Amino acid sequence: MLKDQKIKNFLDTLASKSPTPGGGSVAALTGSMGAALLSMVGNLTIGKRKYIHVEDDIKRLLKRSEILRADFEELMERDIEAFNQFMAIMKLPKETEEQKEDRRKKMQIALIEAANVPLEVARKSLEVLNICQEVANKGNKNVISDAGVGAILAEAAFDSAILNVKINLAMIQEEKVKSNLNHEIEDLLGLARGKKDNAVEIVLKKNINIEKSKTINV
Amino acid sequence: MLKDQKIKNFLDTLASKSPTPGGGSVAALTGSMGAALLSMVGNLTIGKRKYIHVEDDIKRLLKRSEILRADFEELMERDIEAFNQFMAIMKLPKETEEQKEDRRKKMQIALIEAANVPLEVARKSLEVLNICQEVANKGNKNVISDAGVGAILAEAAFDSAILNVKINLAMIQEEKVKSNLNHEIEDLLGLARGKKDNAVEIVLKKNINIEKSKTINV
Repeated sequence: MLKDQKIKNFLDTLASKSPTPGGGSVAALTGSMGAALLSMVGNLTIGKRKYIHVEDDIKRLLKRSEILRADFEELMERDIEAFNQFMAIMKLPKETEEQKEDRRKKMQIALIEAANVPLEVARKSLEVLNICQEVANKGNKNVISDAGVGAILAEAAFDSAILNVKINLAMIQEEKVKSNLNHEIEDLLGLARGKKDNAVEIVLKKNINIEKSKTINV
Repeated sequence: MLKDQKIKNFLDTLASKSPTPGGGSVAALTGSMGAALLSMVGNLTIGKRKYIHVEDDIKRLLKRSEILRADFEELMERDIEAFNQFMAIMKLPKETEEQKEDRRKKMQIALIEAANVPLEVARKSLEVLNICQEVANKGNKNVISDAGVGAILAEAAFDSAILNVKINLAMIQEEKVKSNLNHEIEDLLGLARGKKDNAVEIVLKKNINIEKSKTINV
Protein backbone atom coordinates (compact mmCIF):
# COMPACT_ATOMS: atom_id res chain seq x y z
CA MET A 1 0.00 0.00 0.00
CA LEU A 2 1.12 3.52 -0.77
CA LYS A 3 0.86 4.65 2.85
CA ASP A 4 3.37 1.98 3.91
CA GLN A 5 6.03 3.29 1.54
CA LYS A 6 8.88 5.40 2.81
CA ILE A 7 8.70 8.99 1.55
CA LYS A 8 11.99 8.68 -0.35
CA ASN A 9 10.85 5.46 -2.10
CA PHE A 10 7.47 6.98 -2.88
CA LEU A 11 9.13 10.01 -4.54
CA ASP A 12 11.50 7.76 -6.51
CA THR A 13 8.61 5.62 -7.80
CA LEU A 14 6.53 8.71 -8.54
CA ALA A 15 9.36 10.11 -10.70
CA SER A 16 9.95 6.78 -12.47
CA LYS A 17 8.23 5.46 -15.60
CA SER A 18 5.92 3.37 -13.43
CA PRO A 19 2.43 4.76 -14.15
CA THR A 20 1.39 4.49 -10.46
CA PRO A 21 1.45 6.38 -8.27
CA GLY A 22 0.56 9.39 -10.45
CA GLY A 23 -1.19 12.73 -10.19
CA GLY A 24 -4.39 11.18 -8.80
CA SER A 25 -2.96 9.64 -5.66
CA VAL A 26 -0.66 12.64 -5.23
CA ALA A 27 -3.73 14.89 -5.17
CA ALA A 28 -5.22 12.74 -2.38
CA LEU A 29 -1.92 12.78 -0.48
CA THR A 30 -1.78 16.57 -0.81
CA GLY A 31 -5.32 16.80 0.61
CA SER A 32 -4.26 14.55 3.44
CA MET A 33 -1.31 16.83 4.27
CA GLY A 34 -3.63 19.84 4.20
CA ALA A 35 -6.04 18.17 6.64
CA ALA A 36 -3.11 17.01 8.80
CA LEU A 37 -1.82 20.59 9.11
CA LEU A 38 -5.25 21.75 10.34
CA SER A 39 -5.20 18.88 12.85
CA MET A 40 -1.75 20.00 13.98
CA VAL A 41 -3.03 23.53 14.64
CA GLY A 42 -5.98 22.00 16.53
CA ASN A 43 -3.74 19.75 18.62
CA LEU A 44 -1.48 22.70 19.47
CA THR A 45 -4.49 24.79 20.54
CA ILE A 46 -6.40 22.33 22.73
CA GLY A 47 -5.37 22.46 26.39
CA LYS A 48 -3.86 25.97 26.18
CA ARG A 49 -5.39 28.32 28.76
CA LYS A 50 -5.34 31.22 26.31
CA TYR A 51 -7.63 29.33 23.92
CA ILE A 52 -10.03 27.79 26.45
CA HIS A 53 -12.92 29.92 25.11
CA VAL A 54 -12.65 28.25 21.67
CA GLU A 55 -11.75 24.76 22.89
CA ASP A 56 -15.12 23.21 21.99
CA ASP A 57 -14.96 24.66 18.47
CA ILE A 58 -11.40 23.48 18.00
CA LYS A 59 -12.32 19.98 19.18
CA ARG A 60 -15.13 19.87 16.61
CA LEU A 61 -12.81 21.12 13.85
CA LEU A 62 -10.10 18.62 14.82
CA LYS A 63 -12.58 15.76 14.69
CA ARG A 64 -13.58 16.88 11.21
CA SER A 65 -10.01 17.31 9.90
CA GLU A 66 -9.02 13.89 11.22
CA ILE A 67 -11.97 12.20 9.47
CA LEU A 68 -11.05 14.00 6.23
CA ARG A 69 -7.42 12.95 6.61
CA ALA A 70 -8.49 9.30 6.90
CA ASP A 71 -10.78 9.71 3.86
CA PHE A 72 -7.88 11.04 1.79
CA GLU A 73 -5.62 8.21 2.88
CA GLU A 74 -8.23 5.76 1.59
CA LEU A 75 -8.65 7.69 -1.66
CA MET A 76 -4.88 7.54 -2.27
CA GLU A 77 -5.14 3.75 -2.47
CA ARG A 78 -8.46 3.78 -4.34
CA ASP A 79 -6.95 5.93 -7.09
CA ILE A 80 -4.18 3.41 -7.69
CA GLU A 81 -6.69 0.54 -7.75
CA ALA A 82 -8.89 2.37 -10.27
CA PHE A 83 -5.89 3.03 -12.49
CA ASN A 84 -4.67 -0.58 -12.32
CA GLN A 85 -8.19 -1.76 -13.13
CA PHE A 86 -8.24 0.49 -16.18
CA MET A 87 -4.81 -0.74 -17.32
CA ALA A 88 -5.91 -4.38 -16.97
CA ILE A 89 -8.92 -3.72 -19.21
CA MET A 90 -6.67 -2.01 -21.76
CA LYS A 91 -4.88 -5.33 -22.14
CA LEU A 92 -8.05 -7.35 -22.89
CA PRO A 93 -8.16 -8.96 -26.36
CA LYS A 94 -9.74 -6.91 -29.14
CA GLU A 95 -9.69 -9.27 -32.07
CA THR A 96 -13.35 -10.17 -32.64
CA GLU A 97 -16.20 -7.66 -32.72
CA GLU A 98 -17.55 -9.25 -29.54
CA GLN A 99 -14.23 -8.81 -27.74
CA LYS A 100 -14.04 -5.21 -28.90
CA GLU A 101 -17.52 -4.44 -27.59
CA ASP A 102 -16.87 -6.23 -24.29
CA ARG A 103 -13.59 -4.32 -23.85
CA ARG A 104 -15.25 -1.01 -24.70
CA LYS A 105 -18.06 -1.53 -22.15
CA LYS A 106 -15.66 -2.57 -19.38
CA MET A 107 -13.43 0.37 -20.15
CA GLN A 108 -16.32 2.79 -19.83
CA ILE A 109 -17.16 1.42 -16.37
CA ALA A 110 -13.50 1.67 -15.34
CA LEU A 111 -13.29 5.23 -16.68
CA ILE A 112 -16.29 6.29 -14.63
CA GLU A 113 -14.63 4.92 -11.48
CA ALA A 114 -11.37 6.61 -12.53
CA ALA A 115 -13.30 9.91 -12.65
CA ASN A 116 -15.24 9.25 -9.44
CA VAL A 117 -12.11 8.92 -7.30
CA PRO A 118 -10.71 12.40 -8.08
CA LEU A 119 -14.27 13.78 -7.85
CA GLU A 120 -14.39 12.47 -4.30
CA VAL A 121 -10.94 13.97 -3.66
CA ALA A 122 -12.28 17.33 -4.90
CA ARG A 123 -15.35 17.07 -2.60
CA LYS A 124 -13.18 16.25 0.42
CA SER A 125 -10.72 19.04 -0.46
CA LEU A 126 -13.63 21.46 -0.53
CA GLU A 127 -14.56 20.28 2.97
CA VAL A 128 -11.02 21.03 4.13
CA LEU A 129 -11.27 24.48 2.52
CA ASN A 130 -14.57 24.98 4.34
CA ILE A 131 -12.92 24.66 7.77
CA CYS A 132 -9.59 26.42 7.06
CA GLN A 133 -10.88 29.90 7.84
CA GLU A 134 -12.31 28.90 11.19
CA VAL A 135 -9.08 27.08 12.14
CA ALA A 136 -7.07 30.15 11.10
CA ASN A 137 -9.41 32.40 13.09
CA LYS A 138 -9.57 30.36 16.28
CA GLY A 139 -6.34 28.33 16.33
CA ASN A 140 -3.14 29.00 18.27
CA LYS A 141 -1.71 32.06 16.54
CA ASN A 142 1.87 30.86 16.97
CA VAL A 143 1.31 28.03 14.50
CA ILE A 144 -1.16 29.92 12.36
CA SER A 145 1.03 29.72 9.26
CA ASP A 146 0.31 25.98 9.27
CA ALA A 147 -3.40 26.73 8.85
CA GLY A 148 -2.46 28.89 5.87
CA VAL A 149 -0.31 26.16 4.32
CA GLY A 150 -3.16 23.72 5.03
CA ALA A 151 -5.49 25.93 2.98
CA ILE A 152 -2.97 26.24 0.13
CA LEU A 153 -2.55 22.45 -0.01
CA ALA A 154 -6.30 21.83 0.18
CA GLU A 155 -6.78 24.11 -2.83
CA ALA A 156 -3.92 22.40 -4.70
CA ALA A 157 -5.52 19.01 -3.97
CA PHE A 158 -8.86 20.39 -5.17
CA ASP A 159 -7.42 21.83 -8.41
CA SER A 160 -5.41 18.67 -9.13
CA ALA A 161 -8.46 16.48 -8.56
CA ILE A 162 -10.67 18.64 -10.80
CA LEU A 163 -8.02 18.47 -13.54
CA ASN A 164 -7.98 14.68 -13.23
CA VAL A 165 -11.78 14.48 -13.47
CA LYS A 166 -11.70 16.66 -16.60
CA ILE A 167 -9.01 14.48 -18.19
CA ASN A 168 -10.97 11.30 -17.50
CA LEU A 169 -14.19 12.95 -18.68
CA ALA A 170 -12.69 13.28 -22.15
CA MET A 171 -12.79 9.53 -22.65
CA ILE A 172 -16.22 8.85 -21.18
CA GLN A 173 -18.75 8.25 -23.95
CA GLU A 174 -22.10 8.26 -22.15
CA GLU A 175 -23.59 11.75 -22.50
CA LYS A 176 -25.65 11.59 -19.29
CA VAL A 177 -22.56 10.71 -17.21
CA LYS A 178 -20.49 13.41 -18.93
CA SER A 179 -23.13 16.04 -18.30
CA ASN A 180 -23.55 15.08 -14.63
CA LEU A 181 -19.81 15.23 -14.09
CA ASN A 182 -19.59 18.59 -15.83
CA HIS A 183 -22.34 20.01 -13.64
CA GLU A 184 -20.72 18.79 -10.46
CA ILE A 185 -17.37 20.25 -11.52
CA GLU A 186 -19.08 23.62 -12.06
CA ASP A 187 -20.77 23.47 -8.66
CA LEU A 188 -17.58 22.49 -6.84
CA LEU A 189 -15.57 25.24 -8.55
CA GLY A 190 -18.15 27.80 -7.47
CA LEU A 191 -18.14 26.58 -3.88
CA ALA A 192 -14.34 26.47 -3.56
CA ARG A 193 -13.67 29.90 -5.03
CA GLY A 194 -11.93 32.37 -2.71
CA LYS A 195 -11.76 30.05 0.32
CA LYS A 196 -7.98 29.55 0.27
CA ASP A 197 -7.39 33.28 -0.24
CA ASN A 198 -9.63 34.14 2.71
CA ALA A 199 -7.79 31.73 5.01
CA VAL A 200 -4.36 33.04 3.93
CA GLU A 201 -5.57 36.61 4.48
CA ILE A 202 -6.60 35.78 8.06
CA VAL A 203 -3.16 34.25 8.66
CA LEU A 204 -1.34 37.31 7.32
CA LYS A 205 -3.52 39.67 9.37
CA LYS A 206 -2.78 37.74 12.56
CA ASN A 207 0.86 37.86 11.61
CA ILE A 208 0.85 41.66 11.61
CA ASN A 209 -0.26 41.47 15.21
CA ILE A 210 2.58 39.07 16.03
CA GLU A 211 4.96 41.53 14.38
CA LYS A 212 3.73 44.23 16.71
CA SER A 213 4.28 42.14 19.81
CA LYS A 214 7.60 40.63 18.57
CA THR A 215 7.25 37.59 20.76
CA ILE A 216 6.50 33.98 20.05
CA ASN A 217 5.77 30.97 22.21
CA VAL A 218 4.88 27.74 20.40
CA MET B 1 15.28 11.71 8.65
CA LEU B 2 11.90 12.72 7.27
CA LYS B 3 12.45 10.93 3.95
CA ASP B 4 12.95 7.61 5.77
CA GLN B 5 9.52 7.83 7.40
CA LYS B 6 6.60 5.84 6.07
CA ILE B 7 3.89 8.04 4.55
CA LYS B 8 1.31 6.99 7.13
CA ASN B 9 3.67 7.74 10.05
CA PHE B 10 4.63 11.04 8.50
CA LEU B 11 0.97 12.08 8.21
CA ASP B 12 0.26 10.98 11.79
CA THR B 13 3.22 13.00 13.13
CA LEU B 14 2.27 15.97 10.96
CA ALA B 15 -1.24 15.97 12.44
CA SER B 16 0.02 15.54 16.02
CA LYS B 17 1.04 18.28 18.45
CA SER B 18 4.69 17.68 17.60
CA PRO B 19 5.83 20.97 16.06
CA THR B 20 7.93 19.19 13.39
CA PRO B 21 7.33 18.37 10.65
CA GLY B 22 5.19 21.44 9.90
CA GLY B 23 4.21 23.65 7.00
CA GLY B 24 7.81 24.36 6.03
CA SER B 25 8.91 20.81 5.32
CA VAL B 26 5.50 20.03 3.81
CA ALA B 27 6.07 22.88 1.33
CA ALA B 28 9.40 21.28 0.33
CA LEU B 29 7.79 17.85 0.05
CA THR B 30 5.05 19.31 -2.14
CA GLY B 31 7.70 20.84 -4.40
CA SER B 32 9.42 17.49 -4.55
CA MET B 33 6.19 15.78 -5.65
CA GLY B 34 5.69 18.45 -8.31
CA ALA B 35 9.21 17.88 -9.67
CA ALA B 36 8.72 14.10 -9.46
CA LEU B 37 5.56 14.29 -11.60
CA LEU B 38 7.46 16.20 -14.29
CA SER B 39 10.17 13.53 -14.14
CA MET B 40 7.48 10.85 -14.54
CA VAL B 41 6.17 12.54 -17.69
CA GLY B 42 9.77 12.75 -18.95
CA ASN B 43 10.46 9.09 -18.21
CA LEU B 44 7.25 8.05 -19.98
CA THR B 45 8.21 10.12 -23.05
CA ILE B 46 11.84 9.09 -23.57
CA GLY B 47 12.25 6.06 -25.83
CA LYS B 48 8.82 6.43 -27.49
CA ARG B 49 9.10 6.62 -31.29
CA LYS B 50 6.34 9.21 -31.48
CA TYR B 51 8.35 11.62 -29.34
CA ILE B 52 11.79 11.04 -30.86
CA HIS B 53 11.85 14.60 -32.25
CA VAL B 54 11.68 16.07 -28.71
CA GLU B 55 13.82 13.46 -26.99
CA ASP B 56 16.83 15.75 -26.45
CA ASP B 57 14.61 18.45 -24.92
CA ILE B 58 12.87 15.95 -22.68
CA LYS B 59 16.23 14.56 -21.51
CA ARG B 60 17.34 18.09 -20.59
CA LEU B 61 14.05 18.76 -18.74
CA LEU B 62 14.25 15.44 -16.91
CA LYS B 63 17.79 16.17 -15.76
CA ARG B 64 16.56 19.52 -14.42
CA SER B 65 13.48 18.12 -12.65
CA GLU B 66 15.55 15.39 -11.01
CA ILE B 67 18.09 17.91 -9.67
CA LEU B 68 15.23 20.03 -8.31
CA ARG B 69 13.62 16.98 -6.70
CA ALA B 70 16.89 16.22 -4.88
CA ASP B 71 17.15 19.88 -3.79
CA PHE B 72 13.65 19.76 -2.30
CA GLU B 73 14.40 16.51 -0.47
CA GLU B 74 17.39 18.24 1.15
CA LEU B 75 15.30 21.33 2.00
CA MET B 76 12.69 19.13 3.74
CA GLU B 77 15.34 18.09 6.26
CA ARG B 78 16.95 21.55 6.45
CA ASP B 79 13.61 23.09 7.43
CA ILE B 80 13.26 20.72 10.38
CA GLU B 81 16.84 21.44 11.47
CA ALA B 82 16.24 25.20 11.30
CA PHE B 83 13.09 24.87 13.38
CA ASN B 84 14.78 22.66 15.98
CA GLN B 85 17.65 25.14 16.18
CA PHE B 86 15.16 27.94 16.81
CA MET B 87 13.35 25.93 19.48
CA ALA B 88 16.66 25.15 21.25
CA ILE B 89 17.48 28.87 21.38
CA MET B 90 14.00 29.63 22.76
CA LYS B 91 14.95 27.48 25.76
CA LEU B 92 18.17 29.38 26.54
CA PRO B 93 18.20 31.14 29.95
CA LYS B 94 16.96 34.73 30.00
CA GLU B 95 17.61 35.78 33.57
CA THR B 96 20.46 38.27 33.37
CA GLU B 97 20.65 41.14 30.87
CA GLU B 98 23.68 39.41 29.29
CA GLN B 99 21.73 36.18 28.84
CA LYS B 100 18.80 38.06 27.35
CA GLU B 101 21.03 39.84 24.83
CA ASP B 102 22.87 36.61 23.94
CA ARG B 103 19.54 34.82 23.45
CA ARG B 104 18.14 37.66 21.36
CA LYS B 105 21.17 37.68 19.04
CA LYS B 106 21.18 33.91 18.58
CA MET B 107 17.45 33.96 17.94
CA GLN B 108 17.86 36.54 15.20
CA ILE B 109 20.46 34.38 13.45
CA ALA B 110 18.17 31.33 13.75
CA LEU B 111 15.20 33.33 12.44
CA ILE B 112 17.16 34.40 9.36
CA GLU B 113 17.99 30.75 8.62
CA ALA B 114 14.34 29.84 9.30
CA ALA B 115 13.38 32.39 6.62
CA ASN B 116 16.15 31.36 4.21
CA VAL B 117 14.97 27.76 3.97
CA PRO B 118 11.45 28.57 2.68
CA LEU B 119 12.97 31.29 0.49
CA GLU B 120 15.09 28.59 -1.14
CA VAL B 121 11.97 26.38 -1.45
CA ALA B 122 10.21 29.28 -3.21
CA ARG B 123 13.17 29.77 -5.60
CA LYS B 124 13.25 26.06 -6.46
CA SER B 125 9.46 25.94 -6.88
CA LEU B 126 9.75 28.81 -9.35
CA GLU B 127 12.30 26.72 -11.28
CA VAL B 128 9.78 23.86 -11.42
CA LEU B 129 7.12 26.30 -12.63
CA ASN B 130 9.59 27.51 -15.28
CA ILE B 131 9.81 24.05 -16.90
CA CYS B 132 6.18 22.91 -16.49
CA GLN B 133 4.95 24.49 -19.71
CA GLU B 134 7.66 22.91 -21.81
CA VAL B 135 7.02 19.49 -20.24
CA ALA B 136 3.28 19.90 -20.88
CA ASN B 137 3.99 20.97 -24.47
CA LYS B 138 6.48 18.27 -25.40
CA GLY B 139 5.70 15.37 -23.05
CA ASN B 140 3.73 12.19 -23.78
CA LYS B 141 0.17 13.42 -24.13
CA ASN B 142 -1.28 10.32 -22.48
CA VAL B 143 0.21 11.33 -19.11
CA ILE B 144 -0.11 15.04 -19.68
CA SER B 145 -2.42 15.52 -16.70
CA ASP B 146 0.57 14.67 -14.52
CA ALA B 147 2.41 17.70 -15.92
CA GLY B 148 -0.63 19.79 -14.96
CA VAL B 149 -0.73 18.38 -11.42
CA GLY B 150 3.04 18.96 -11.26
CA ALA B 151 2.45 22.64 -12.04
CA ILE B 152 -0.36 22.91 -9.46
CA LEU B 153 1.85 21.38 -6.76
CA ALA B 154 4.82 23.56 -7.70
CA GLU B 155 2.64 26.64 -7.27
CA ALA B 156 1.30 25.34 -3.95
CA ALA B 157 4.87 24.74 -2.75
CA PHE B 158 5.78 28.25 -3.90
CA ASP B 159 2.81 29.90 -2.15
CA SER B 160 3.36 27.90 1.05
CA ALA B 161 7.04 28.80 1.10
CA ILE B 162 6.35 32.50 0.51
CA LEU B 163 3.82 32.46 3.36
CA ASN B 164 6.43 30.89 5.64
CA VAL B 165 9.02 33.52 4.69
CA LYS B 166 6.49 36.27 5.45
CA ILE B 167 5.66 34.75 8.84
CA ASN B 168 9.33 34.48 9.80
CA LEU B 169 9.98 37.99 8.51
CA ALA B 170 7.64 39.37 11.14
CA MET B 171 10.07 38.43 13.90
CA ILE B 172 13.29 39.53 12.21
CA GLN B 173 14.49 42.81 13.69
CA GLU B 174 17.31 43.90 11.37
CA GLU B 175 15.85 46.35 8.86
CA LYS B 176 18.35 45.59 6.09
CA VAL B 177 17.55 41.86 6.24
CA LYS B 178 13.80 42.55 6.32
CA SER B 179 14.00 44.84 3.33
CA ASN B 180 16.11 42.38 1.28
CA LEU B 181 13.67 39.57 2.04
CA ASN B 182 10.70 41.75 1.10
CA HIS B 183 12.30 42.67 -2.20
CA GLU B 184 13.07 39.07 -3.08
CA ILE B 185 9.51 38.04 -2.21
CA GLU B 186 8.21 40.73 -4.59
CA ASP B 187 10.55 39.61 -7.37
CA LEU B 188 9.66 35.93 -6.95
CA LEU B 189 5.92 36.66 -6.92
CA GLY B 190 6.27 38.60 -10.16
CA LEU B 191 8.25 35.83 -11.83
CA ALA B 192 5.88 33.03 -10.75
CA ARG B 193 2.67 34.75 -11.76
CA GLY B 194 0.60 32.95 -14.40
CA LYS B 195 3.02 30.05 -14.91
CA LYS B 196 0.81 27.37 -13.35
CA ASP B 197 -2.26 28.61 -15.23
CA ASN B 198 -0.38 28.51 -18.53
CA ALA B 199 0.74 24.93 -17.95
CA VAL B 200 -2.77 23.80 -16.96
CA GLU B 201 -4.18 25.51 -20.05
CA ILE B 202 -1.78 23.58 -22.29
CA VAL B 203 -2.86 20.33 -20.59
CA LEU B 204 -6.56 21.08 -21.10
CA LYS B 205 -6.03 22.04 -24.74
CA LYS B 206 -4.18 18.79 -25.44
CA ASN B 207 -7.01 16.99 -23.70
CA ILE B 208 -9.55 18.34 -26.16
CA ASN B 209 -7.50 16.67 -28.87
CA ILE B 210 -7.54 13.37 -26.96
CA GLU B 211 -11.30 13.74 -26.66
CA LYS B 212 -11.52 14.00 -30.42
CA SER B 213 -9.45 10.88 -31.03
CA LYS B 214 -11.08 8.92 -28.15
CA THR B 215 -8.10 6.62 -27.80
CA ILE B 216 -5.42 6.30 -25.17
CA ASN B 217 -2.22 4.32 -24.95
CA VAL B 218 0.00 4.96 -21.92
